Amino acid sequence: MKSQRVTSTLRHAKTLLSGAAVPRPVHHTVKPVCSNAARYIHGQTARRSGAPSNPAIKFPCLDALETRSATLEQQASTRSDKSGPEPSYTVGATQIYRCTDPLLLDHGGQLHEFDIAYETWGQLNAARSNAILLHTGLSASSHAHSTPENPQPGWWEKFIGPGLALDTNKYFVICTNVIGGCYGSTGPSSIDPLDGERYATRFPILTIQDMVRAQFRLLDHLGVDTLHASVGSSMGGMQSLAAGVEFPSRVGRIVSISACARSHPYSIAMRYVQRRAILNDPHWNRGFYYGRVPPHVGMKLAREIATITYRSGPEWEQRFGRRRADGSKPPALCPDFLVETYLDHAGEKFCLTYDPNSLLYVSKAMDLFDLGRANQEATAARRAQHALTPPPSPSSPSSQSATPSGGTCSLTLPDKPYEEQPQPSPPTTITTTSPGTTTPQPPADLVAGLKTLRNHPVLVLGVASDILFPAWQQREVADALREAGNARVEHHELSEVQSLFGHDTFLLDVEGVGGAVRGFLG
Amino acid sequence: MKSQRVTSTLRHAKTLLSGAAVPRPVHHTVKPVCSNAARYIHGQTARRSGAPSNPAIKFPCLDALETRSATLEQQASTRSDKSGPEPSYTVGATQIYRCTDPLLLDHGGQLHEFDIAYETWGQLNAARSNAILLHTGLSASSHAHSTPENPQPGWWEKFIGPGLALDTNKYFVICTNVIGGCYGSTGPSSIDPLDGERYATRFPILTIQDMVRAQFRLLDHLGVDTLHASVGSSMGGMQSLAAGVEFPSRVGRIVSISACARSHPYSIAMRYVQRRAILNDPHWNRGFYYGRVPPHVGMKLAREIATITYRSGPEWEQRFGRRRADGSKPPALCPDFLVETYLDHAGEKFCLTYDPNSLLYVSKAMDLFDLGRANQEATAARRAQHALTPPPSPSSPSSQSATPSGGTCSLTLPDKPYEEQPQPSPPTTITTTSPGTTTPQPPADLVAGLKTLRNHPVLVLGVASDILFPAWQQREVADALREAGNARVEHHELSEVQSLFGHDTFLLDVEGVGGAVRGFLG
Repeated sequence: MKSQRVTSTLRHAKTLLSGAAVPRPVHHTVKPVCSNAARYIHGQTARRSGAPSNPAIKFPCLDALETRSATLEQQASTRSDKSGPEPSYTVGATQIYRCTDPLLLDHGGQLHEFDIAYETWGQLNAARSNAILLHTGLSASSHAHSTPENPQPGWWEKFIGPGLALDTNKYFVICTNVIGGCYGSTGPSSIDPLDGERYATRFPILTIQDMVRAQFRLLDHLGVDTLHASVGSSMGGMQSLAAGVEFPSRVGRIVSISACARSHPYSIAMRYVQRRAILNDPHWNRGFYYGRVPPHVGMKLAREIATITYRSGPEWEQRFGRRRADGSKPPALCPDFLVETYLDHAGEKFCLTYDPNSLLYVSKAMDLFDLGRANQEATAARRAQHALTPPPSPSSPSSQSATPSGGTCSLTLPDKPYEEQPQPSPPTTITTTSPGTTTPQPPADLVAGLKTLRNHPVLVLGVASDILFPAWQQREVADALREAGNARVEHHELSEVQSLFGHDTFLLDVEGVGGAVRGFLG
Repeated sequence: MKSQRVTSTLRHAKTLLSGAAVPRPVHHTVKPVCSNAARYIHGQTARRSGAPSNPAIKFPCLDALETRSATLEQQASTRSDKSGPEPSYTVGATQIYRCTDPLLLDHGGQLHEFDIAYETWGQLNAARSNAILLHTGLSASSHAHSTPENPQPGWWEKFIGPGLALDTNKYFVICTNVIGGCYGSTGPSSIDPLDGERYATRFPILTIQDMVRAQFRLLDHLGVDTLHASVGSSMGGMQSLAAGVEFPSRVGRIVSISACARSHPYSIAMRYVQRRAILNDPHWNRGFYYGRVPPHVGMKLAREIATITYRSGPEWEQRFGRRRADGSKPPALCPDFLVETYLDHAGEKFCLTYDPNSLLYVSKAMDLFDLGRANQEATAARRAQHALTPPPSPSSPSSQSATPSGGTCSLTLPDKPYEEQPQPSPPTTITTTSPGTTTPQPPADLVAGLKTLRNHPVLVLGVASDILFPAWQQREVADALREAGNARVEHHELSEVQSLFGHDTFLLDVEGVGGAVRGFLG
């Protein structure tokens, strides 16, 4: 393999001090660095007019996206008269509860009225004491199990039913669609009753606790004063814990699966780049795309990124390895390796079935989640302040002045926020504060924040292969609860041998996850 | 917090069998699921003409991007006459070697001539036996250390010099810019000599081995027959190993830091979504953006995603935690948490200083990297076949017909590639094939592929907190080498206590990484 004939533009040689002859360095100086714009050098290779050295790469994956944009454009134009049908992402029959009492939100926004779309299984007993509120993950709907009205299998089909994890012989199971979402509960695609237009990005910033407060309005409506249990996975686990903290006397038992008590920066980062993928899509139009082509390209990428966080590297190594979709074809920049076609497919399935604005708001609510005491106190103070401000009346056109500044984002970044430190100091605090493999003490702020739950039986379940809600976060929840004085914490951790399915384990592992839940609920 | 007055659109109650009265479910049926297009329901809330419930969110981060697009548009228009300067991403003075002997690439493409921009430190000895070839990571340039011609500190400034890890009292250190990149070596932004136009996406698919072959042309030119050592981190570690496999008699020692012998699906996935971020940017224009506004928005997002993989969750937990850039401001969808502003800043620094097309090609080369025997044999067969085809002559306009079909991408996806398996079979093969925390046997294919290196002293260095090239991949390299009969493998793994800096550790840890390298090179 030694190189054959060698030619060079550098034709002069120079003897270095040590004696060896190497070609004389000819320094090719260009304009100095530092400019944050493309730089230019002078001098061009003489142009020839032959055929190119290599053919251009084709991009069938972009052709497909462009075709879809054109189709959607066509569809949008045919319904351009304002009286036409309006978009909905609702996936099937649900029950609808409309609450016309305003809901004040944690960050100062408000919903003057709102709908909650929900489904139930089993029957409420005479004492109204057997209800379980099941909370969903970010993109899941209330359709956790098939119903007579919607026979499609639900996302927890094998976990709900007679004798199953949520035993419908014993319990009345309620699953709602979160506010902020797009499955029938009020969200960014809903009409703002004050001006008759869709909220879009005039929807207020939400928190997990806001979602929970809306759910408890539904419980009031259903006549359920006290839940036998609050159960949830992923974002649903956040809601499950938040329900206990917000309404301690109305929640019996708490189940939190693959969730956390406060979001950590890696998860925030992964959700942030998903949001940026949507914001970057020109069709997103700062949220005002209803009735037009939705940002399906950015939404697809957002889902592809999300999908990376739902499983584990080792599972993909087993499932896909380095196999390509078609090894007989040359490598491509469009999906090529099996893992790429898997991501592409996941994005494809999702990009028109979930509202991009909902992804922005609901994922932001996850980022904001923090059951630490400091955040709880700050929120309570903010709520008290906003509660003093009378909500704008629907009939008052000047009501906007009463709206707190909550919804605006005028944040500007510092000029030099985080310059790399070439020689950072060693992480001396690792043994006490690292959330790595060693088990640190839970943060005192979180322990204080969870004191409300010190008497609740709590099941905390984590999965070692989860990279989105790592197992150390479940240990953090369990340890913080114990530290807060809770003697009724049950903590399970499924090892990599038990599950390589990462974050998605809660959807798949009927035995490991379902069994633990059934045992805990009794 | 109990909800006050409750109203509902469901005004009827129904007594369930068990006796409790809950409101009668009114099922809100919509069109069936399955369609992959936005669905519509009829019925609209009566519109009101008041002010909206909440103000619209502002997006200063998008304002900034739009301003930049306009500025770049303006700049592009002022140089619109074809004789104007052409863009370059070169960052400073380098030496340039031009090779006019064509380079046949692993996937059938070819470069009829190419440049390699490089820098050197120390002096070649009389026996020409003290050269070290230092390979770069994906986005790093040849500027590993300051030079008289370019006094800016290099990316390994504290690792190169008298008495340092690469001791310039002893060694002649060469660092090149890879072909496919944009720092002066031939890449997609270069002029195709056959037609005088920029390659753009007519640049051929590259492999790590192609980059190495180009480097060895430079070594021929410099009169370096045998390297004392081949050294690299990240993608540079791939090149370092590949150099030994391609040119075993010309490489003495091998250092591979935070790299791998074959890319695994998680890394491929993370790089794939980066590429998609670029492909999705309308300014990318299928690669033909030179002289126009570059896809700076997609490129910025790509870098933000990449940055997530360069550090570790635990490091961010220590460094940023849940702190926000300005806690006095309301939450924002633009960068808000410190970790978000950190990503934003990383993207900002990079988005105009590296060629997006280079990111596509170089990252794809990383994905294609596989030192297993099967891939080596397939490549050798392909090369033998292509070598029989005479390369097109620059003077022959019909030369395209002689070009193999290598560069085209006509890959189509199966209709239903990877439907979720709700009840997958348990991962029974975990103990033998999982690359998780247990140390499995290295794959036989990789052991066979690394037999060429069985007599080379090899240093393999991994970092426990690295999520991009996890420590198990370094163990895989070391174990495969040992299994192949190599008794001179030195394997170090920096624990989370030693470094939480993840993949970036090789840039930062002078003691742990630099010390190991210095000790190994002697």
